[in-house]
Amino acid sequence: MANWTLIDKYAKAWLQEAGTRIVSSFATAPEVMTKSNPDDLVTNIDQETEQFFTKKIREAFPDHYILGEEGFGDDPAGFSGIIWIIDPIDGTTNFVHQQRNFMISIGIYENGNPKLGYVYDVVYQELYYAKAGEGAFWNDKKLPPLEKVPVEKALIGINSTWLVSNRLIDPRETLIPLVNDARGTRSYGSAALEFVFVATGRLDAYITMRLSPWDFAGGKIIVEEVGGKVTNLKGEPLNILERNPIVVAKPGLHEKIIQKYLSKGL
Amino acid sequence: MANWTLIDKYAKAWLQEAGTRIVSSFATAPEVMTKSNPDDLVTNIDQETEQFFTKKIREAFPDHYILGEEGFGDDPAGFSGIIWIIDPIDGTTNFVHQQRNFMISIGIYENGNPKLGYVYDVVYQELYYAKAGEGAFWNDKKLPPLEKVPVEKALIGINSTWLVSNRLIDPRETLIPLVNDARGTRSYGSAALEFVFVATGRLDAYITMRLSPWDFAGGKIIVEEVGGKVTNLKGEPLNILERNPIVVAKPGLHEKIIQKYLSKGL
Repeated sequence: MANWTLIDKYAKAWLQEAGTRIVSSFATAPEVMTKSNPDDLVTNIDQETEQFFTKKIREAFPDHYILGEEGFGDDPAGFSGIIWIIDPIDGTTNFVHQQRNFMISIGIYENGNPKLGYVYDVVYQELYYAKAGEGAFWNDKKLPPLEKVPVEKALIGINSTWLVSNRLIDPRETLIPLVNDARGTRSYGSAALEFVFVATGRLDAYITMRLSPWDFAGGKIIVEEVGGKVTNLKGEPLNILERNPIVVAKPGLHEKIIQKYLSKGL
Repeated sequence: MANWTLIDKYAKAWLQEAGTRIVSSFATAPEVMTKSNPDDLVTNIDQETEQFFTKKIREAFPDHYILGEEGFGDDPAGFSGIIWIIDPIDGTTNFVHQQRNFMISIGIYENGNPKLGYVYDVVYQELYYAKAGEGAFWNDKKLPPLEKVPVEKALIGINSTWLVSNRLIDPRETLIPLVNDARGTRSYGSAALEFVFVATGRLDAYITMRLSPWDFAGGKIIVEEVGGKVTNLKGEPLNILERNPIVVAKPGLHEKIIQKYLSKGL
């Protein structure tokens, strides 16, 4: 049986070491490259950080699988065994433009079930983490269960991209009425950050049309540990090995967003 | 003649003291009230912080005018003399929901001319400030002049509110094409924060349809000291005692945003 206490201890130590390396890298400009399109950035620091984790994991836990954004892990065929799903820098555009508002995200699953989740703000050294069944934490503070809130008082994480004409959702009957009814919207450019903002109650919901496993694997475990809901736009569970559109929200608000708004677009 | 070194010294000391008080207030929930509408929040901490500044200023500089968001200052009839334009908590919704991402903002003008600007992140104790003609600073680091960037590589601060149907701009020929062309958008819910993000190059532009003097008075001085442009949607100078729609951007990008996009809506 896996020693989860040891895995947790190692994960936290590696996060801290990786964070120190990333912050040190600010002294010199990163090498910025593009991936799928000119706005899809990656840097040598993303790559080096993922390589750091894959090396550490393979040394300490050679039977674990790794799924990483930059492709230095494995190509897991299914859910069996223990898998680390890693985004070395979630919010690379922020990393390049801002040197802040990016996160290291790690979700560890066993046979498809959530075990440990980490989202680490390396600049401010704030760690959000959860052990499935044992609660979620912001640094050493246990996070309280999320409380219900009506749409009219909700602060919603959503990017402008989804409110203008786009290929993934028609906003006219769905997101635009939601934005009009909510108290306000914010957009931070890091899914992991927006997940933990929901987990800490700083946002009431977060909606986005496309996230990869590494974008949500860590944050999902943290949000669910405080009673938040994480599903696709139909309210169905996510496949943690695939791209998904995502609604993250407080209990009650999640159902309301799907029933009153998003279902109009399906 | 005014002793600007002394004014600067006092302003910084008061910002620090006010920041300590605000952070201490996190231990108890603030009293939240609404102003013009249910989403226009104010708290006892906004009011107490403004009263703290007005008391200090009146004691030290009895001949200075004060214009504050919460109304504890004066009702200045014109630009003559020295005026402190103060937002005790810029981003009150963030203060209430997040206990972060809000700023104290102060702009000090003499006969309508910029003299000293301050935007203070009390949570992370990051001070952005400028002395007109002597440059802008992030803590003790002098900020470099802003460099040009094309729209395609620009990260733009804009809230979803302005991309859906609203009373202040028709986004169809203006903001929607801009969002489509830009690298990405962000929204933080504090104008002062978004101004200093432009000043530090973390954002390339920030656009909003309505700001009051206390929202922009401090940030405007800081942005302009690093070569950024701050105007209304027509490219005209702002009246610092009135509400204005605002475009803040790097040089070159500012003109491009107005000519190629915003002028289509005028």
